[in-house]
Amino acid sequence: MTRDDPLFLRIAESFSRQGLMQLLAARIEEVAPGRCALSAPITPAVSQQQGFGHAGLGFALADSAAGYAALSLMPEGADAVSVEVKMNMLRPMSGLRLFATGTVLRAGRRITVVRADIEALQEDGSRRLTGAIQGTMMAV
Amino acid sequence: MTRDDPLFLRIAESFSRQGLMQLLAARIEEVAPGRCALSAPITPAVSQQQGFGHAGLGFALADSAAGYAALSLMPEGADAVSVEVKMNMLRPMSGLRLFATGTVLRAGRRITVVRADIEALQEDGSRRLTGAIQGTMMAV
Amino acid sequence: MTRDDPLFLRIAESFSRQGLMQLLAARIEEVAPGRCALSAPITPAVSQQQGFGHAGLGFALADSAAGYAALSLMPEGADAVSVEVKMNMLRPMSGLRLFATGTVLRAGRRITVVRADIEALQEDGSRRLTGAIQGTMMAV
Amino acid sequence: MTRDDPLFLRIAESFSRQGLMQLLAARIEEVAPGRCALSAPITPAVSQQQGFGHAGLGFALADSAAGYAALSLMPEGADAVSVEVKMNMLRPMSGLRLFATGTVLRAGRRITVVRADIEALQEDGSRRLTGAIQGTMMAV
Repeated sequence: MTRDDPLFLRIAESFSRQGLMQLLAARIEEVAPGRCALSAPITPAVSQQQGFGHAGLGFALADSAAGYAALSLMPEGADAVSVEVKMNMLRPMSGLRLFATGTVLRAGRRITVVRADIEALQEDGSRRLTGAIQGTMMAV
Repeated sequence: MTRDDPLFLRIAESFSRQGLMQLLAARIEEVAPGRCALSAPITPAVSQQQGFGHAGLGFALADSAAGYAALSLMPEGADAVSVEVKMNMLRPMSGLRLFATGTVLRAGRRITVVRADIEALQEDGSRRLTGAIQGTMMAV
Repeated sequence: MTRDDPLFLRIAESFSRQGLMQLLAARIEEVAPGRCALSAPITPAVSQQQGFGHAGLGFALADSAAGYAALSLMPEGADAVSVEVKMNMLRPMSGLRLFATGTVLRAGRRITVVRADIEALQEDGSRRLTGAIQGTMMAV
Repeated sequence: MTRDDPLFLRIAESFSRQGLMQLLAARIEEVAPGRCALSAPITPAVSQQQGFGHAGLGFALADSAAGYAALSLMPEGADAVSVEVKMNMLRPMSGLRLFATGTVLRAGRRITVVRADIEALQEDGSRRLTGAIQGTMMAV
């Protein structure tokens, strides 16, 4: 999807209003119907006590990515808010950059069920699965 | 608990190493065996797209508070890491300041089950429940 | 609440239509606004592979108890269905009888956030916390 | 995998000890390393109040399927127990038969993270996704 596609622009406009995404230096990697990927650098500024990325970093990124995946299937003018999200931590969030890719499991009229995988880009260019969320977004 | 209590110092030392807590301007409000409260200001810098606090803010605070509640019951030298956390959003995170109070449901040898309530301090001094987590911490 | 109270009757009528509750020999223990407790015997017929009660037994009971806690605050004529439920297992479900007590964290117009604690009655008459759920019910 | 494969036999032996699986008339559909599918009929005996399959039916089946997916990657002699499981309900559980297919997201030494999809077989032979779980199993 090119960056002047209406769906990309719709999500980019909302994304630009998320103060936390700016604080985390997050950016949009990919937008498609039912799918959105975001990324943010893993730095000491977003660490937990052992120096790995904080679970809250992975959650924030995955929650926004999954929310935009849901939003991408909602009618123009709708907004998506989180009802609930559950995250499993699979490995320490270590590496250069965190990628969260949200997808839609089931889009309903009001309720959309989403998943997102959280991967950490390693120095050798590979990506390692570090977390996974499953949650519910609501159209408001 | 006074601020020179060994348990408080143990948690404060770990807390000071959490880069994300500093980025969010979080502070420790309370430490007791099986219990820890943290707080952070709700500002545009940590907002979602509608101007309310981002779910990731509430999650980060609650995850750390619940982790320290678990750590407070673990043997000296142990560290607590998140295995999984589930958050329900109850109301928009609006107000002056967010408080997350973690408690322990069940402390096992390796696995500790925790909850945390997330409340938003309103201008009139009242606190409103805005979110709730239930999760699992592991001693490492 | 007496057994001819309208709220009790409303929930008892719905409960009697839940085939699975009958299969599990479950019964209603308590009904109050925002609260419902159910119980069922722990027998070999509902075990997992080690002989303890199956997680599915605890879940089914807690899901129904939490659903009725939500329903008790919904307008007459509404029905409550599960959107999502998360359960933590705290201890093996061993003992004579399992009790699930559902409570409401936040009742919204469409979405109600609930919790339920799952306790196992021991031979000495004490109750041991064996599980806890947190979930979302929707009025339909 | 044929039914005299050692992995199939290991899981079938454990499955035969799960009283609840027998009560639900469940059977093993598929076993492979990191994967297990179970199924059970949707009948009035396992319904919720509207006549659809009870969430507890889907949960029990998915919890066991995911547990066996985890067990299939654990060393001989280990057993897998549920630490926590979260289920989203995507559609009413209606149809002839429910299939739960568990897969492993990440197998650790003690902790294994799993998912399972819950599908309902329709009269026309198609399968409809009705639920999804994400959870944690532990080797004991």
